[in-house]
Amino acid sequence: MTDETIVPMIEYGQADEAVRAVYDDIMHTRGSDWINNFWKVLANDPKLLKRTWESLKEVMGPGALDPLVKEMIYIAVSATNNCDYCSWSHTASARAKGMTDPQLMELLAVVGMANETNRLANGLKPPVDAAFKPKGPKQ
Amino acid sequence: MTDETIVPMIEYGQADEAVRAVYDDIMHTRGSDWINNFWKVLANDPKLLKRTWESLKEVMGPGALDPLVKEMIYIAVSATNNCDYCSWSHTASARAKGMTDPQLMELLAVVGMANETNRLANGLKPPVDAAFKPKGPKQ
Amino acid sequence: MTDETIVPMIEYGQADEAVRAVYDDIMHTRGSDWINNFWKVLANDPKLLKRTWESLKEVMGPGALDPLVKEMIYIAVSATNNCDYCSWSHTASARAKGMTDPQLMELLAVVGMANETNRLANGLKPPVDAAFKPKGPKQ
Amino acid sequence: MTDETIVPMIEYGQADEAVRAVYDDIMHTRGSDWINNFWKVLANDPKLLKRTWESLKEVMGPGALDPLVKEMIYIAVSATNNCDYCSWSHTASARAKGMTDPQLMELLAVVGMANETNRLANGLKPPVDAAFKPKGPKQ
Amino acid sequence: MTDETIVPMIEYGQADEAVRAVYDDIMHTRGSDWINNFWKVLANDPKLLKRTWESLKEVMGPGALDPLVKEMIYIAVSATNNCDYCSWSHTASARAKGMTDPQLMELLAVVGMANETNRLANGLKPPVDAAFKPKGPKQ
Amino acid sequence: MTDETIVPMIEYGQADEAVRAVYDDIMHTRGSDWINNFWKVLANDPKLLKRTWESLKEVMGPGALDPLVKEMIYIAVSATNNCDYCSWSHTASARAKGMTDPQLMELLAVVGMANETNRLANGLKPPVDAAFKPKGPKQ
Repeated sequence: MTDETIVPMIEYGQADEAVRAVYDDIMHTRGSDWINNFWKVLANDPKLLKRTWESLKEVMGPGALDPLVKEMIYIAVSATNNCDYCSWSHTASARAKGMTDPQLMELLAVVGMANETNRLANGLKPPVDAAFKPKGPKQ
Repeated sequence: MTDETIVPMIEYGQADEAVRAVYDDIMHTRGSDWINNFWKVLANDPKLLKRTWESLKEVMGPGALDPLVKEMIYIAVSATNNCDYCSWSHTASARAKGMTDPQLMELLAVVGMANETNRLANGLKPPVDAAFKPKGPKQ
Repeated sequence: MTDETIVPMIEYGQADEAVRAVYDDIMHTRGSDWINNFWKVLANDPKLLKRTWESLKEVMGPGALDPLVKEMIYIAVSATNNCDYCSWSHTASARAKGMTDPQLMELLAVVGMANETNRLANGLKPPVDAAFKPKGPKQ
Repeated sequence: MTDETIVPMIEYGQADEAVRAVYDDIMHTRGSDWINNFWKVLANDPKLLKRTWESLKEVMGPGALDPLVKEMIYIAVSATNNCDYCSWSHTASARAKGMTDPQLMELLAVVGMANETNRLANGLKPPVDAAFKPKGPKQ
Repeated sequence: MTDETIVPMIEYGQADEAVRAVYDDIMHTRGSDWINNFWKVLANDPKLLKRTWESLKEVMGPGALDPLVKEMIYIAVSATNNCDYCSWSHTASARAKGMTDPQLMELLAVVGMANETNRLANGLKPPVDAAFKPKGPKQ
Repeated sequence: MTDETIVPMIEYGQADEAVRAVYDDIMHTRGSDWINNFWKVLANDPKLLKRTWESLKEVMGPGALDPLVKEMIYIAVSATNNCDYCSWSHTASARAKGMTDPQLMELLAVVGMANETNRLANGLKPPVDAAFKPKGPKQ
């Protein structure tokens, strides 16, 4: 147990069977041979570990959106919330899926702009235009 | 002036030349014939109106990312911050650019998941893996 | 009890002595003859009412900063957090202390810009320059 | 003055009488013999120090909720806002009051889930059911 | 489809088998005979509906924390993020599990205080005391 | 390229002409001879660099509000959002414009108080008083 995490990190060698099964599935799904620290802290609660991994695998897997777009959305949320770990890990994941530096810069430009205009709208409170509502006419 | 906005909404007919020039550019760029309420409140400060519009036009225009992806990032940020006006307006814009309901649902599933794991990381504080840093080796 | 608040609003006529004493001090301090709804919901917990009012009176009273500047800081925080009630009430207070519409627009322009650059810094993570730390040299 | 805090930390030996009185009450109330860094930075404004400590003592003291529950609520807010100092200090306080690691993990699972569903609701905007309002019938 | 939600609300009568199975489980688990609007918007994505419900049922079910404490944590997060729907729905749930008005007021007093001290720590940046880290000595 | 930033920092010597032109304007405008790290990461996207700098120069320049007040608003937003880099850089800027330590402490006291009352209002949901709306009568 390092004194720099709030709970111990559970390494593969120390993990019980339930945790190992999740670790194995993470490595198998990703085609990698290591587990990043996020999962090692979640492993203190094997049910939380399993549920979070299975939800993430389902959400980030094939669907209506491109997997790289989903990683970029993850970066957008993490920068907005200022989650340090998440920005590092999802920027790395997005790059592994082909995100270029110009795409990252442009993504953050949109994130910055959205955070700006969100507050202009919060502070000035324009009414929502009827045209923006389903079936609503323009005003 | 309605009593439901914090500042008056400046309609085209009341606007001075500087504001009209921006309104004209908004309508021309969008190929539309009306102005949504966000710009009408910003028009109380013509420099803010012009700067915000020109920045938004540059950020959301052609670049390294697909315009629809940019609209979806805007929705992700607006849902995270809970900006009501922005959620309505950018969901409408994304639909106008072709976003389907299954894509919207999947986008929000990613946003929800990111907001969840951001807090698990904040509360449990796993150290950032060296492998996530540029040129860093895996641990 | 209206069905639109989560707890009842305690009107002056229904209030017990402890609550009335706070209401009287609010009206006396402000030179007004009515109580706004925020205090009427807090009054469900007389200790919370008293502590919040006394803290607010001390924080917003004479000190190292101009009272109008303090109201503008309140607006900046409320727009960032998207607190609807607080934006309305503190914009009204700031106006009562002399804030003009051009000042409000400029204040929100700064709030918008700060929310934008906060996220650019969160997402790109420049190291803090030594020159920004007390006694630190520039780099 | 270290160059790693924005304002100096006021140690007991350097503190004036007003600050020492608060420090003494903190140590007495907690049955401890040291002051944590949060109070040492607040001590640059003795009124802020005193008001914050007295409010915290009142809020976190005996009342309608169990003291350990209150510490867990503090952790929930701090993880949501990503306040690093606060997560460390209140996790330590909660443990000192008996919080176990399984309780911490479950607490953060709830925090994660709440942050997720908050954004699903923000983005999809279901109307509030009448049944959730006081005295309201179910729909 | 009302024009006041971003996606249609799926009523039981219109729902396909997968959605009905979740609706039935929600009503069975809660011992109620109706579905609140949150689930009706999620039902536009049956996998999201099922995953969110099953996660919520697991997280909020029996465990290391009292179910009422978990509802109060949900309220704390929802007030911090300002999720309107979530504040109404989880305040109602907590009351159904026995939360009194004095408990709600005290809960929000803690939430308010935590949001205040989170920002004092963010702005003044006291270093984390070694004593707050596992096995760390006091400073 | 250090392994501690997400993108490289572009130093003056490596920068192309478009980036140097912005760097020169930053130093000229500030009367300084160095560039802080925020701009060096933005320089990976010369258009983002130029737009952000020009917007910031316009927003923070002479106008309806005192330049020091604007820096204090920046600090208020940065502490609310917990942007570490921004708190350090704008506290330094505000001090360079004359902010004293008592002013900084009082500013953060207001920020803390606003974050507290924002959540009391979010959680208890008092209706907005008619008197707070333009031209509205008091209730």
